[in-house]
Amino acid sequence: MRNITEDNLTQVVLDRTDIPDGRTKDFIDKLITHVHAFVRDFEPTEEEWFKAIDFLTRTGHMCTGTRQEFILLSDVLGVSMLVDAINHRNMDGATETTVTGPFHTDAPPMEMGAMIATGPEAERGEPSVVRGRITDIDGNPIKGATVDVWQSDDIGYYDTQDVNQPEINLRGLFTTGEDGEYWFRTIKPLYYPVPTDGPVGELLKAAGRHPMRPAHIHFWIKADGHEQLITHIFVEGDEYIESDAVFGVKDSLVMDFIPNDSQEEAAKYDFEAPFYEVEYNFALKKTE
Amino acid sequence: MRNITEDNLTQVVLDRTDIPDGRTKDFIDKLITHVHAFVRDFEPTEEEWFKAIDFLTRTGHMCTGTRQEFILLSDVLGVSMLVDAINHRNMDGATETTVTGPFHTDAPPMEMGAMIATGPEAERGEPSVVRGRITDIDGNPIKGATVDVWQSDDIGYYDTQDVNQPEINLRGLFTTGEDGEYWFRTIKPLYYPVPTDGPVGELLKAAGRHPMRPAHIHFWIKADGHEQLITHIFVEGDEYIESDAVFGVKDSLVMDFIPNDSQEEAAKYDFEAPFYEVEYNFALKKTE
Repeated sequence: MRNITEDNLTQVVLDRTDIPDGRTKDFIDKLITHVHAFVRDFEPTEEEWFKAIDFLTRTGHMCTGTRQEFILLSDVLGVSMLVDAINHRNMDGATETTVTGPFHTDAPPMEMGAMIATGPEAERGEPSVVRGRITDIDGNPIKGATVDVWQSDDIGYYDTQDVNQPEINLRGLFTTGEDGEYWFRTIKPLYYPVPTDGPVGELLKAAGRHPMRPAHIHFWIKADGHEQLITHIFVEGDEYIESDAVFGVKDSLVMDFIPNDSQEEAAKYDFEAPFYEVEYNFALKKTE
Repeated sequence: MRNITEDNLTQVVLDRTDIPDGRTKDFIDKLITHVHAFVRDFEPTEEEWFKAIDFLTRTGHMCTGTRQEFILLSDVLGVSMLVDAINHRNMDGATETTVTGPFHTDAPPMEMGAMIATGPEAERGEPSVVRGRITDIDGNPIKGATVDVWQSDDIGYYDTQDVNQPEINLRGLFTTGEDGEYWFRTIKPLYYPVPTDGPVGELLKAAGRHPMRPAHIHFWIKADGHEQLITHIFVEGDEYIESDAVFGVKDSLVMDFIPNDSQEEAAKYDFEAPFYEVEYNFALKKTE
């Protein structure tokens, strides 16, 4: 083929592939089709094309063992939540999912009720009790479910971002008993910005968008015979609850952190009043 | 916005931006629109999404000062030639363009007629004389045009890829006189594969495509008052002339390398017969 023109080029590229039917063929054909459609629609100058090449290159160079700039790009473009939505169409009453985010690390197993805030934020933050049950979608408690939690502190940092926090902090791994119940003590998380010192930060700035995520606690729940559940509990009333930079908020995941002024109740948790209480029950689908 | 669904997500992401009308707004809106359309069309699993993240990350990590894997990705997907086509719609009789490729480096100025093959390939290869004229689109010769040429050797390597070649080899920079003529001596180039040891190689393999580019000589021609011209001369009859891995072949750029068996003629060029001759005239548009 040596008479390739603007008109026939996309078809020539599609025709060049030689792949058996299946997901790989479907992916490559649709990649070519949609990337060409984007280029034909935007009509970049050669200089703009090179700026895009440079953006992708710098995004790749920003990725390390502890930083994933392409996932962040996917997140802020709403792609991660679109993939989430496509893969969780039929919830059948199971708890809704949201993004995993880049801050998960393995937490140590803890006794139910443990205080996961063990750094300087424990003094500064607003003490909170988080509790609930892990059940199947019919409400039957699941024994032996592991509840992996992680969150930012009262100034918006995860332990991995902040040298002033203990090495493992505001993380915990809890295993349910017969009743399916979990509970732990922590501090109320705060909103925080996604990392803005890389190409994704430039993109957000160019798009006139703020980088903030509303306050939340991450949950990753696993139980034999059930689909795993990756989600958050968001804090009702957060300044950014309507404008999450990664579009992760779902109404069913937003919870009131209810203040409790009783010094007597607080003492039960080794807290000073006032403290906050939030209860959230998670329902898991059985695996097919 | 906390009731984001698969249906409204794309619009929510589009609405979040706050950009004045212009190219930046156009780019970001179309990026969101087309990337979402691709995801909605392909419907990746979460595992497939992560494979795509990993592919982009590895592509970025492959990019160095001397290797540009994202440009290679753009090339093999036909995106580079699509951008080329969009930006060169009205040739008005000027010579057609093709991809720049990743192998250009600055060549030293040379006397007209110089032999640019100065390594072991000079002994092995098929000696060739390349000549022609640089004119405007009305055929008037351009004086002082710089003709920057570079090519692979007789086994398909550029100097920058091959420790057995001199540091600067098979490159030259010629400046035209009053007559607009250029000429130099070289060897016939050979087809070669684009680099296949990275993610783009994996993609080509998955697509059932070969990585070969048909033999060619690169030209980058600049002249005051004229648009620069980046193009190739391809060798007629090359095994891969119909299936260039980067879709760069245009019929007007494919030339016969005409064999000449005259020992007398060969001697004029300090060659042994047989040798090859190719003549190509380049026409440049005036800048507006």
